[in-house]
Formats: sequence, structure tokens, C-alpha cells
Amino acid sequence: MEGSWKGRSPMKVEEPLERIAAADRAAIEARLEALLTRLAGQHAGMAEAMRYSLLDGGKRLRPLLCLWTHDLWGGPWRDAALDAACALECVHTYSLIHDDLPCMDDDDLRRGRPSSHRRFGEATAVLAGDALLNLAYEVITTLPERHAIPPAVCLEAAAVLASAAGTAGLITGQALDLEASPRGDLARVERIHEHKTARLIAAAMEVGAVLAGASGEARARVSRSGLDAGRAFQIVDDLLDIEGSQEALGKTPGKDVNRGKLTYPAVVGREAARARAAELVAGSLEALPEARGTHLERLLRFVVERGF
Amino acid sequence: MEGSWKGRSPMKVEEPLERIAAADRAAIEARLEALLTRLAGQHAGMAEAMRYSLLDGGKRLRPLLCLWTHDLWGGPWRDAALDAACALECVHTYSLIHDDLPCMDDDDLRRGRPSSHRRFGEATAVLAGDALLNLAYEVITTLPERHAIPPAVCLEAAAVLASAAGTAGLITGQALDLEASPRGDLARVERIHEHKTARLIAAAMEVGAVLAGASGEARARVSRSGLDAGRAFQIVDDLLDIEGSQEALGKTPGKDVNRGKLTYPAVVGREAARARAAELVAGSLEALPEARGTHLERLLRFVVERGF
Repeated sequence: MEGSWKGRSPMKVEEPLERIAAADRAAIEARLEALLTRLAGQHAGMAEAMRYSLLDGGKRLRPLLCLWTHDLWGGPWRDAALDAACALECVHTYSLIHDDLPCMDDDDLRRGRPSSHRRFGEATAVLAGDALLNLAYEVITTLPERHAIPPAVCLEAAAVLASAAGTAGLITGQALDLEASPRGDLARVERIHEHKTARLIAAAMEVGAVLAGASGEARARVSRSGLDAGRAFQIVDDLLDIEGSQEALGKTPGKDVNRGKLTYPAVVGREAARARAAELVAGSLEALPEARGTHLERLLRFVVERGF
Repeated sequence: MEGSWKGRSPMKVEEPLERIAAADRAAIEARLEALLTRLAGQHAGMAEAMRYSLLDGGKRLRPLLCLWTHDLWGGPWRDAALDAACALECVHTYSLIHDDLPCMDDDDLRRGRPSSHRRFGEATAVLAGDALLNLAYEVITTLPERHAIPPAVCLEAAAVLASAAGTAGLITGQALDLEASPRGDLARVERIHEHKTARLIAAAMEVGAVLAGASGEARARVSRSGLDAGRAFQIVDDLLDIEGSQEALGKTPGKDVNRGKLTYPAVVGREAARARAAELVAGSLEALPEARGTHLERLLRFVVERGF
């Protein structure tokens, strides 16, 4: 996908985001691989299904947001932040597997390949999703066993993740999404986007900040920044569902509209949706002046330039 | 169900276990109710489905094991142990909801009522299970927000729970159970029982010990005691599946045999299975001399006298 990570200014020669991210993406995937290898002895078939969805060439947006937000403050616990970034990806991947199930969105394709239940059957897909959600907590509650990080810091990060993955976030987002009709209003679509997408993205960034020892004031700004970026991301995702091809999306395009789902462009139109996404990313950056000129700024801008 | 909690010795007048447990069961259910009420504002339908399965008259074996193991050492954190006990029940309830799904064991009845997917549909049942698994971690990672408990202790308890609920426990247990044929050997049925039942029961007791500040040596004995008790519990469950009525079981009897599942009595016979369960409970008590004469001893004996 040449050009998908291109910088925003054609006048200035910027290093491509894909190249900037390469080392950290490789580190994230090596760590995900190591976590799965530790588990493979327990049940080979389950490990295979977990690996299939977890190591499938995703862009690793949430883990990168976690790591690069951490890097705004730095500190001695970057290896712990890398593990926590993997936990974020586990939660995200679990949510995709369960959302694709026949009783949910019934999607046959995910990132250009058969979805988990198409490949392994429904029982294994449900269990692999459960296993990945739980694995996130196995990873994040054991950080002090592998890294010199205070348990209190680790527990705070775990609590941030758990809140975003629960009924205050992902669960309610999917429940609302399932019952949405295409005739909802703006408040409703914003509530869905916030729960199903924005809160986990905000949590990814907040976990990074917590593991860098950022102050409570900074954490609050990180969370606001992440919520705006997450809202922008989901608006762009809705736009891509209308405009994108299957190859670019890696999933079936037009599904939202065909299933009568409530999307942002359906409520306000495509132009207004694009403008709103750009406005949200501007707000996201404004909340976080520490990010100016960093990789994180590039990544947050990328959210609207091209959905993952 | 008069008599189901009766003591083992007809010669000695013992207070019925049901009466001994009444106050703590009421406390557990009040706490579960409070946790759900805090969540109800997020999504009413999801809260209803979570409540339906969580507050359905279960015996609360795992929470009681957690609390009463805690009480062997006592200490200032019993309120935190009560919250953790609720987290254990959330994990147990999630596993029942997902195990009952059509793509898993396809069970229409649970504790004498329609199973979650029969009552609310599959999508809601999958999500309610996900929500309860996650809720367990929301509860256990936030103990220091509600109780004066050190974060390090809380994190250790969370890690014990996460390990038992993951591929080292529940997940592999259910994966093995789904693929089992009735012709497996003893090693296989013991492996299934250990993963699908014993490790969460052992975790319930170990979490109680951790939250009482028990030593590492004591924790290891608690875990061994819990594994043996859990193995005995599952053998009795297998026996009840053959011998029990639907009213006593609260679920469809004969399902294991009809589905060609590998059960303990199918491998060694009913008499040998009964003898093995009694032997395991004796071993469970031997590993934990602190429990002699306590409510916990009564509860551990109850595991073989009558499955929950």
C-alpha cells in the first residue's frame, strides 16, 4: 500500500511514517509472538487461532499510540509499555473476532483474509476472542514479574484498560451498534463512536502516559486527545466503508450501509463528516502540545489522512 | 432444596451449612447487585442480561471459597476480599454463558431457567459473557479505589485470577472439552477437569489467601488444596449428570453422555469415581490443616456430598 503512510505536506520531504514506525511495529510483533509462544504448549489449536488473528499484518495503531504517548515523557519503563501495548492489541483483536461472528456483524473477511469463525468455526472463534481478552489482563497484571515497574503504576494502567474494554466502552459500543437503525441522529452516532472506538484508543494513549509516570493533569489531556482522535478515526472508517475498495479496506466494503447501520456520513453527509474528522484531529493535537513535532503528531494526523 | 447443605455426620448436631453461609451469600449478592447497578446507566439491555445470569440463585461456591479461605488468616482487607469474590463469580458466570452457546454445548437450560442466548439471543449472550469477564478485571484492578489495600497485593490477586481464566485454565478446559470423544483415557479426563474446573476453584481460594496476606508457602498449599477440591467437584458433577434429575441439577441431565463427552465415571466406573472424589477431598483438607473445624472445611466436604 505505497503512499498510505505519506506525510501531509508535499512541499517538505518527510520520512515516511511507515519507515518511522517500522522498528516499533517489529518490536510489537516480536513481543506478541513471544507471548503466544509461551501459551502454545497449553493448547495448540487455540494458540493457532489466537495467532491467526493477532499476527495478521495489522497496522498496530493502538500499540503505537501507547508507545509513542509513553515516549512523550520517556522514563525507565518502556519495555513495560511495550508489553502493555501488546495487551491493547489483544483487546482490539478480541473485539474484532467477536464482532465478526454470525450472530453479530456476520463478516466473512477481516484484513483481507477469512474471519476467525470462517477459518476455525464459531466455537473456536468465540474461545479465541475470550482468550485474547483474558490474555490482555494476564500480560498487564504481570508486568512487575518481567520489568522493574512499581505494582501501583501497573495496576492503574490495568484499570484504565479494563474500563475502556467494559460497559463504559467497547461492550456498550457494540451493543448500541447492533441495535442501531440508519435513522438515528447525530447524538446517537457520536455515542456509538465514542464507546466502540474512541475509548479504547484513548485508553491506549492513557496507558502509555501512566507507564511513563505522567501527572494526573497530563493524563486527563492525553485522554481527551485520544477521545478526539478516536472519534475522528471512526468517522474516517465510516467514510472508507462507503468509498473504499475491498483491497484497501481488508474487509467487506459497503457493509455498514447494506446492513442499515447508523454511520456518521449518513447523518451529516460526506463533506461535513470529513470536515468534522479534521476538526477532531486538530482538537486532539491541541490538547497535547507535548506531541508537537513528534512521531505521535504524525500518527494522529494519519488517522484522518488514511484509516488503518 | 432442603437437606442439600446437610453436615456429614448424622450423629452430631451441626448447624446447617446453608445457615452458616447465609450472611456471606447475602453480602456477595448485595455486592454483585451494587456492581451491576453502577453499570446499568451505560446500557440497560446489557445490564439486564448480565444481571439475569449473575443473580440467578447460584450457590456462590467460588466466592464463598475465596472469602472463607481469606478468613483462615483474617486481616483488615475482608471487604476487598468480598469484591474479589464477586470478580470470581463474574468469571464463572461468563464461562457458563459462553459454554451454553449453540456453537459450544448448545444448552437451553441453566440453573432451571432458559440459558442466556435462549432468553436474550446469541449476540447479547456473547456480549454479556464478554462484559462479565471484563467486569471481573474492572472490579479487581480497582480494589484500592474502594479499600485500603496495597496495590501490590491487589495486582497479585488479579494475576492469579487472570492465569486461571486464560489458556492455562478455563480456555484450554473448554477447548479440550469440545473436542473430547467418550473414548479418552484417564489422563485426558483429568486434564480436562483440571483446566475447566479445578484451576478457577483453586484461584478462588488462592485469591482469598493473597488478600489475607498469607505467606508464599501457605499460598502454595491453598492452591494444591483448591485443585484437589476442584477435581473432586467436577467428578461429582459428572456423576450428577448421570444420576441427577433436571430439578436437582438446574440444567439438562444426561447431556454429557448424550453428547459423547468424556466423563470421569465413563472412564473408571461410578463407584471408582465416587471413591476418587472422596480421596481428593481428603487430600484437599490434608493440604490445609488451617481449615480444620472451620466453615471452609464444611464447604470443602460439601463439594463431594452434593455438587452445587
